[in-house]
Amino acid sequence: MIITQIHVTPVAFRDPPLLNAAGVHEPWALRTVVEVVTDEGLTGLGETYGDHDHLAKVRECAQRLIGLDVHATNEMYRRIHAAVGDVVTDLHGLTGAATKEKSVDRVHSPFEVACLDIRGKAAGVPVSDLLGGRVRDAVPYSAYLFYKWAGHPGEPDDRYGPALDEAGLVAQAALLIKEHGFRSIKLKGGVFPPDQEIAAIRALHEAFPGVPLRLDPNAAWSVETSIRVGRELDGVLQYLEDPTSGIPGMAEVSAAVPMPLATNMCVVTPQHLPPAIASRAIGVLLLDHHYWGGLVRSSQIAALCGTFGLQLSMHSNSHLGISLAAMTHLAAATPNLTFACDTHTPWQDGQDVVRPGALRFTDGAVTVPTGPGLGVDLDRDALAAMHEQYLTCGIRSRDDTTYMRRVEPGFSARRPRW
Amino acid sequence: MIITQIHVTPVAFRDPPLLNAAGVHEPWALRTVVEVVTDEGLTGLGETYGDHDHLAKVRECAQRLIGLDVHATNEMYRRIHAAVGDVVTDLHGLTGAATKEKSVDRVHSPFEVACLDIRGKAAGVPVSDLLGGRVRDAVPYSAYLFYKWAGHPGEPDDRYGPALDEAGLVAQAALLIKEHGFRSIKLKGGVFPPDQEIAAIRALHEAFPGVPLRLDPNAAWSVETSIRVGRELDGVLQYLEDPTSGIPGMAEVSAAVPMPLATNMCVVTPQHLPPAIASRAIGVLLLDHHYWGGLVRSSQIAALCGTFGLQLSMHSNSHLGISLAAMTHLAAATPNLTFACDTHTPWQDGQDVVRPGALRFTDGAVTVPTGPGLGVDLDRDALAAMHEQYLTCGIRSRDDTTYMRRVEPGFSARRPRW
Repeated sequence: MIITQIHVTPVAFRDPPLLNAAGVHEPWALRTVVEVVTDEGLTGLGETYGDHDHLAKVRECAQRLIGLDVHATNEMYRRIHAAVGDVVTDLHGLTGAATKEKSVDRVHSPFEVACLDIRGKAAGVPVSDLLGGRVRDAVPYSAYLFYKWAGHPGEPDDRYGPALDEAGLVAQAALLIKEHGFRSIKLKGGVFPPDQEIAAIRALHEAFPGVPLRLDPNAAWSVETSIRVGRELDGVLQYLEDPTSGIPGMAEVSAAVPMPLATNMCVVTPQHLPPAIASRAIGVLLLDHHYWGGLVRSSQIAALCGTFGLQLSMHSNSHLGISLAAMTHLAAATPNLTFACDTHTPWQDGQDVVRPGALRFTDGAVTVPTGPGLGVDLDRDALAAMHEQYLTCGIRSRDDTTYMRRVEPGFSARRPRW
Repeated sequence: MIITQIHVTPVAFRDPPLLNAAGVHEPWALRTVVEVVTDEGLTGLGETYGDHDHLAKVRECAQRLIGLDVHATNEMYRRIHAAVGDVVTDLHGLTGAATKEKSVDRVHSPFEVACLDIRGKAAGVPVSDLLGGRVRDAVPYSAYLFYKWAGHPGEPDDRYGPALDEAGLVAQAALLIKEHGFRSIKLKGGVFPPDQEIAAIRALHEAFPGVPLRLDPNAAWSVETSIRVGRELDGVLQYLEDPTSGIPGMAEVSAAVPMPLATNMCVVTPQHLPPAIASRAIGVLLLDHHYWGGLVRSSQIAALCGTFGLQLSMHSNSHLGISLAAMTHLAAATPNLTFACDTHTPWQDGQDVVRPGALRFTDGAVTVPTGPGLGVDLDRDALAAMHEQYLTCGIRSRDDTTYMRRVEPGFSARRPRW
């Protein structure tokens, strides 16, 4: 099955004002939809970031993959490695200095997912079967809580309303759990001073006894603050995610706090694994196939984590249904991915480029699609509408910090902040 | 594609009297051929060890895999893990203490290979395409030299004749290179005192200038001897394979010799990788899909080695064409497997269970089959004849040491011997 065409379509969709250490989500979130078309007429779907520089690389590389067989991912990776120059751009400032290796993995990912979608369709099996077969029929996700404004400035309140204190977060969690049935909770922290976020976690612990809790301040804290918070939340947090920046700092915190540390910031490319493992910096890796070069490479990283005794969970950026399907197949086929995964899906509030109905939350888990490929179909009307939104929304790269400064001119995204 | 039947057939084939640290190859070598049959009529092939205890496990597990889909390797592995008890037997004494994990990987391997053969046939693609696609069209193998007797005791000389000194080895190498075109040479050592083997390597270096050389004494040496030999062979050996036993000893040698150390003895299961990496015990892992749980798991180990800066080569036991095909597909699809692989194929001298012609050596390399699946077909007459040989040969488990003692009653296989 030879690749004859690749369509690369940037899209934009409404995003609520979710707060984080870097600022606040802008009114529109960007993604890129990749459609790979083969000579036999089968089409596969992939989804990746929509930021301008990344999109340009995806578009440029797409041209170089025409003529390849959908199985030839080694050669695909080699061509992308040759095409992605040395000047690369970091995404959203969350994963450290930009490197060529990170860019290659991120550009490779949507093409690889699309090729697996095609291979699954051709073989009549779900993508999870191409990754070893599902070991669970449904993949648990966590309720992903955010501090948030009631609505974007100048707009009416959104339906989630404000969450700027414990009561707001508890109400938000109750709504997400009511609507999706989640059985784990993650709070995006790094927004308010640590004691306020400790109080929020305690309030969630009281309101939802027995529900596993996680806190992710996106490295907003110093080593000292991280150790203090970690110790105060002993017995309350399932894991503490990226309290501080960098592998050495995480290693120091890790040695001093009772719970495992998780990361999707300091270990985001294979080169980070040897030093992180040697220094025991982390206990949990948040896998993300958008970072790690696609689904098969993520499976390989999962196997490596199993070998070295690292546990696995899954990271999420704002995403659409193609990514949710891919994440679900990967998690279903990864025996040692035992924590509930992260997803931003509830915040998209039904907006999607895939036809509704394929992916449903029941008791906080998405049933693994058992149809061929990813199991999701492109909704071409929705794609066209979201592409139109991309063209008119005015945003070309995510920049939570600049948007925040329009409201709070003195806002600083410096790390550590506390 | 549901597995409806599995046929497990032990076979025996003639093997020359090849000397090694454990003794000498018996007149018959054993293997097991696994045929997996699906409801859609496609059949896949796998090959594994023929030793009695391993064969019993393979037979027992085969029954538990009926009804599984050929993609469900995670579930296959789980069932084998549940079926293989805690009492396990080591194979040939070369890979350290027996563990349950080693047994599970070794039993899983032939079934996984057979399922990939079926998946490749169904998709109309070679197995290498299911592993990421081939990055080389031919896989280089090395000439695998052995000290040997002229023939088995009481039998006429075989066509390779004796190799008990430098001249014999040089003549053997010349013959293997003439017949197969090999461009690398490996000598199985651990047979004579180290100075004699040093002299042999020097003789090969002189006779075949520029041809990469390796020496594998199967851990017959102490740390001190290993360091002395490694230093004496500076600039002559491409790598030194398993000079001494165990990860700590290998680490000591590694720090003191100029060339990389390779292993298929001290790192043979995922649990060995963390301590071997932490202590820098090895520079090259000899991958072996028969050890490492099949082809996909071997790919994962290859990716791990890439992440940690370990180089890759490939190990071989006496094997037939199903294994040679599987090894060739794996090596073809593993970008960082850059050394010529080991194979015993020349010593089988045309005996095989697969129809001739599918796998040919040109300039020491096997052209990667591009037909569906493994690209080899079972020769049912040959299988029947070799099974008959199994039934009558009288050997049920490989035991090089006992056979050696019939000729040299005082022979000791103790390690270290020197």
